[in-house]
Amino acid sequence: MNESEASQNVSLDPEDWEEFRTLGHQILDDMVEYLKDVRERPTWQSPSAASRDFLQTPLPKKGSSLTEVYRDVKEHILPYPTGNIHPRFWGWVMGTGTHVGVLADLIGSTMNCHVSGYDQGATLVERQVIHWLGEMLDFPKGTSGLLVSGGTVANLLGITAARNSLAGTDIRKEGLGSGTGDPLVIYGSEATHGWAERCCDLLGLGSDGFRKVPVDDHDRIEVGELARMIQIDRNRGMRPICIVGTAGTVSTGATDDLIALADLAQAEGLWFHVDGAFGALAKLSPRYRYLVNGLERADSVAFDLHKWGYMQFETGAVLIRDGKAHEKAFSFAPSYLENFSGGIAVKPTEFASKGIQLSRSFRALRVWMNLSVYGVEKLGQAIEQNIDDSFYLASRVEAEPDLELLAPVVMNVVCFRFVQDGFSDRELDELNSELLVRLQESGVAVPSNARIDGRFAIRVANTNHRTIRSDFDLLISSTLELGRRLAGWSSDVLA
Amino acid sequence: MNESEASQNVSLDPEDWEEFRTLGHQILDDMVEYLKDVRERPTWQSPSAASRDFLQTPLPKKGSSLTEVYRDVKEHILPYPTGNIHPRFWGWVMGTGTHVGVLADLIGSTMNCHVSGYDQGATLVERQVIHWLGEMLDFPKGTSGLLVSGGTVANLLGITAARNSLAGTDIRKEGLGSGTGDPLVIYGSEATHGWAERCCDLLGLGSDGFRKVPVDDHDRIEVGELARMIQIDRNRGMRPICIVGTAGTVSTGATDDLIALADLAQAEGLWFHVDGAFGALAKLSPRYRYLVNGLERADSVAFDLHKWGYMQFETGAVLIRDGKAHEKAFSFAPSYLENFSGGIAVKPTEFASKGIQLSRSFRALRVWMNLSVYGVEKLGQAIEQNIDDSFYLASRVEAEPDLELLAPVVMNVVCFRFVQDGFSDRELDELNSELLVRLQESGVAVPSNARIDGRFAIRVANTNHRTIRSDFDLLISSTLELGRRLAGWSSDVLA
Ligand SMILES: Cc1ncc(COP(=O)(O)O)c(C=O)c1O
Ligand SMILES: Cc1ncc(COP(=O)(O)O)c(C=O)c1O
Repeated sequence: MNESEASQNVSLDPEDWEEFRTLGHQILDDMVEYLKDVRERPTWQSPSAASRDFLQTPLPKKGSSLTEVYRDVKEHILPYPTGNIHPRFWGWVMGTGTHVGVLADLIGSTMNCHVSGYDQGATLVERQVIHWLGEMLDFPKGTSGLLVSGGTVANLLGITAARNSLAGTDIRKEGLGSGTGDPLVIYGSEATHGWAERCCDLLGLGSDGFRKVPVDDHDRIEVGELARMIQIDRNRGMRPICIVGTAGTVSTGATDDLIALADLAQAEGLWFHVDGAFGALAKLSPRYRYLVNGLERADSVAFDLHKWGYMQFETGAVLIRDGKAHEKAFSFAPSYLENFSGGIAVKPTEFASKGIQLSRSFRALRVWMNLSVYGVEKLGQAIEQNIDDSFYLASRVEAEPDLELLAPVVMNVVCFRFVQDGFSDRELDELNSELLVRLQESGVAVPSNARIDGRFAIRVANTNHRTIRSDFDLLISSTLELGRRLAGWSSDVLA
Repeated sequence: MNESEASQNVSLDPEDWEEFRTLGHQILDDMVEYLKDVRERPTWQSPSAASRDFLQTPLPKKGSSLTEVYRDVKEHILPYPTGNIHPRFWGWVMGTGTHVGVLADLIGSTMNCHVSGYDQGATLVERQVIHWLGEMLDFPKGTSGLLVSGGTVANLLGITAARNSLAGTDIRKEGLGSGTGDPLVIYGSEATHGWAERCCDLLGLGSDGFRKVPVDDHDRIEVGELARMIQIDRNRGMRPICIVGTAGTVSTGATDDLIALADLAQAEGLWFHVDGAFGALAKLSPRYRYLVNGLERADSVAFDLHKWGYMQFETGAVLIRDGKAHEKAFSFAPSYLENFSGGIAVKPTEFASKGIQLSRSFRALRVWMNLSVYGVEKLGQAIEQNIDDSFYLASRVEAEPDLELLAPVVMNVVCFRFVQDGFSDRELDELNSELLVRLQESGVAVPSNARIDGRFAIRVANTNHRTIRSDFDLLISSTLELGRRLAGWSSDVLA
C-alpha cells in the first residue's frame, strides 16, 4: 500500500466491529432497564452542577472512544430526561414513547433512508402509513398526507394549502406584497393553540391575519359570532380563506362544534382546517369518538402521533382531503431532481412535494411498527383508559374540600387548584404556582399549568399509557400535603 | 383487583421484558451485520413485487407480536434502503450516517426528550452543540443557532430572520399584504438550490421575490451584476433585504466569492445569508477550508450534518450571528407555556423561540456523540479524503478518451459523461441517462445526474466516508462497459 492508498483509509466505521457490538449490547441492556425501571426513578430532576459544568466543555478537537463517550452520556445526560416517559408525567401534552418505537428508531437509524420519495422500501411504508392514518380518522380513500416533525408544522402545512388554494392569485409566484389582493384572514377560537399566530406570521399574513373568535363557557368557539365576523371582515375588504377548528384545546381539552364549523365553511366557500394535535386520536376510542365528530369533514387535519399516539418525538401528521390542492400547494421539482422511469430516481420528490423538507428521515417506520404491533384497537383502549382515568382524577379532586376543579373535564385534561379559606384569588395563584414547582422538584409528579379565567391552574394532560389510577391518588395526596404546608407557611407569614 | 382496577391495565409496555430484551439483542446483532456487511450488498435494489404487495395491506385493527412485526420488517423493508449507507452511493448529497449515530438514536429514542427548552440534560446538550458548531465554522462566541430537520428549514430560518429584521414594519404582526411596504426581494445566483424559491413562496414574498443573478463559467455568482440588479430594483421601488451566497452548489460544488458578497451586503445594508448545506463543512479540512473563506462573515448560515457531517437524517443546523435578531424573528411565548424560576419549566420555549417547531426531539445527542467520538480532526480528515478522492475520480475521467468531464472539479462533486464519436449532444443525453439508470439497477453504484450547460451529466457527490478509491475504479470500468454496450446498440439501431 503506497502513501496515497494509506491516506484513503479514513473511515468513520468502527475499527473493531466486535467491540462495537459488545458496547451496543451493553447500551441496549441499559436502555431496557431504563424503560423497565422508569417508575423507580424521580419523574424529573434538575441536572447536577457537575453535569452542567461538564456540558460546557469546548469543541472536541481530538476524538474519544465510543466507550468513554457513552460513559459520559450515562453519567451526565441519561439521569436528566424531560421525564415524559415516566408514569407520573402529565405536563403540557407530550406522550411517552413506546418500546416498539425504540427498536423502530434503532432500525430506522441504521437504514438511514432519505425519504423525499424514490423507489425504495421507506417510500412504500410512508405511503401505506398515510393510507392507514386516513382510515383511522375516517377520511375517504385517496386522502393525501404527510408525516412531519409535529403539530406545528402539520398545522402550517394545512394553512399553507388553504392559502395557496384560495388566495385567488398565483400566490406562490407573486407573493402577498404585490398589493393586488385583499388581506387574507383565517379564523379560529381564542382557545386555539399558539401555532396559529406563528403560522400566519410565517406565511406573510401577519399574526393579525389570525382572527380570534370568542369561546363559550366550555372553551368552544361561538359559531354565530364567527359567522358575523366573517361578514364584517368581507365588508371591510378582507378575504377570509380558512376556518380553524380545534379538537382538544391545549388548556382544557375542549373540542369545537366541528360539524357546525364544517357547515359554515362549506356555506362560505372557506377551507376547513382542524387542529387535532392530540384530540384527533380520540377517534380511536369506540366510546369517546363522538367527542370529535365532524373531524372527518375537514379539508385538512393536523395531529401528533407523538402525543396521544404514544410514539416518540418527532411524529406529526397532516391529512389533506384534496390531493390536487395538496400538491399544488407544495409541488417541488428542481431540475437536478429529475424524475426517471427506472432506477432509484422514480418520483424522487413525491414527499418533498407535499411539505417543506427535502431531506426527510424514515419516521414512517416508527408509525408502521407501532400500528402493526398494537393495532388501532389497543391504542384505542389506552386512549379510552386515559379519558376514564381523567374523570377518575376529576372525581378525586371534587371529593376533596381543599381542591377545586377549575374547568369541566371533557376528555383527558384536568385543571384544578389547591384552595384554602381566607385566601384571595391572587394569593391562591401564588400558592398554586409554588406548589406546582415543589411538586415537580419533589420528583413525585410533573403536571404543568394553565390559566382558567385568569386563575392559575395545576393542569394534568393524560396522554400517558404508563399511568395507573394509584398514580393519580399519589398526585392528590402530595398536592394536599404540599398545599397545606404552603398554606400554613403563608398563614404564619400573614400572622 | 376489581373490574375497574383491571380495566386500568392497558399499558403499551412489553408484557414480558425479557422477551423484549432478547428480541432487542437479536435486532441489534442484525443491525451491526447490516452495517458491517453493507459493501457485500447491492448499492440499491428495487423492492420486490411481493414486498410491494405486502406494503399495501389495510390498517391493522388487531396487533401482532413485535417478533412477527420485525420478521416482516426484515423481509420486506430492510432489503430496500435508499442505499446512501453503501460505499458506492454518491447520488444527490446524502451522507451515510455513522455507527455512533445508531447508538445515539437508540439512546435518544429511549429518553424521548421534548426539547423545546426546559431544565433538562437535552437542553444543556443542544446549547453546547450550538456553541460547538459556531466554533467549528469560526463564528464568534455567543452566536445563536438551532438544530433543525435539514438544509431547507435551516435556510428558511435564516431568510425569515432576514425578513423579520429588515422588513421595516412589524411584519410578524401586520404581514405583507397590508400594502404599506415595498415588495421585499432577496438575491442569489442561478445555481442556488431550489429551497430559495420555496422559502420565498412560503414567506409570502413569492418565488418572484427570489432574484436570480447570473453565474460565471465556474458557477459562481457575478458580483458586479448582483450590485447592478440591487440598484435597479431599488429604483423600481423594491426593497432588497438579503443576499444569499452558496458554499457548495448542488450541481458542481462551486462556492460564491463569499468575501465579496459579505462586503456588498455590508455596503448595501443587507442581510448576508450563506447556504452551506454541504460545503460549509469544508471548514473542517485544514487543506481545503480556504474554499469557503468568508463564510464566517455571514449573518446566518445553514448547513447539514446529515450531509458532509456524515450523521443520520434529520440533522440540519442554522447559525445566526445576532442572537437578538434571531429571537426577535421567532419569539414564541403562549401563556400556557409560562416560564418559572424553579421546577422543570425554566425557559420552556428557549428553542421553540428560535425556529418553527414546538415539540422537538433530542437530535442534539446525535451531534454531541458524533463530535465527541470523532472530534473535528477526524471529521476534517474524512472530508479532506472525499475531496482528494473527487480529484482522483476526475483524473480517471480525464484519462479515459470515452469519458468527458463536464465541469471543473473544485470540491467534492464530479460531473462527467460517456462520449462516443459521431453522437450528437442529444444522443449523448439519451445514452447517458440510460447508462445512469442501468448503473443504478446493476447495484454497482448510485450516482445521480445534473444538467451542465443543458447537457446530461452523471454526477458524483462524494460525502461518503465509506468510499475508497477502488470504488471509483469500479465506477469507471462499469460506466465504460455499460456505455460501450449502449453505444453499440445505438450504432446497430442507427446502422
Ligand atoms: C392543541 C395543540 N395544537 C398544536 C400543538 C403543537 O404541536 P407540536 O408541539 O407537536 O408542534 C400542541 C402542542 O402541545 C397542542 O396541544
Ligand atoms: C446546496 C444545497 N442546499 C440546500 C439543500 C437542501 O437541504 P435538505 O435536503 O437538508 O433540506 C441541499 C440538498 O441537497 C443542497 O445540496
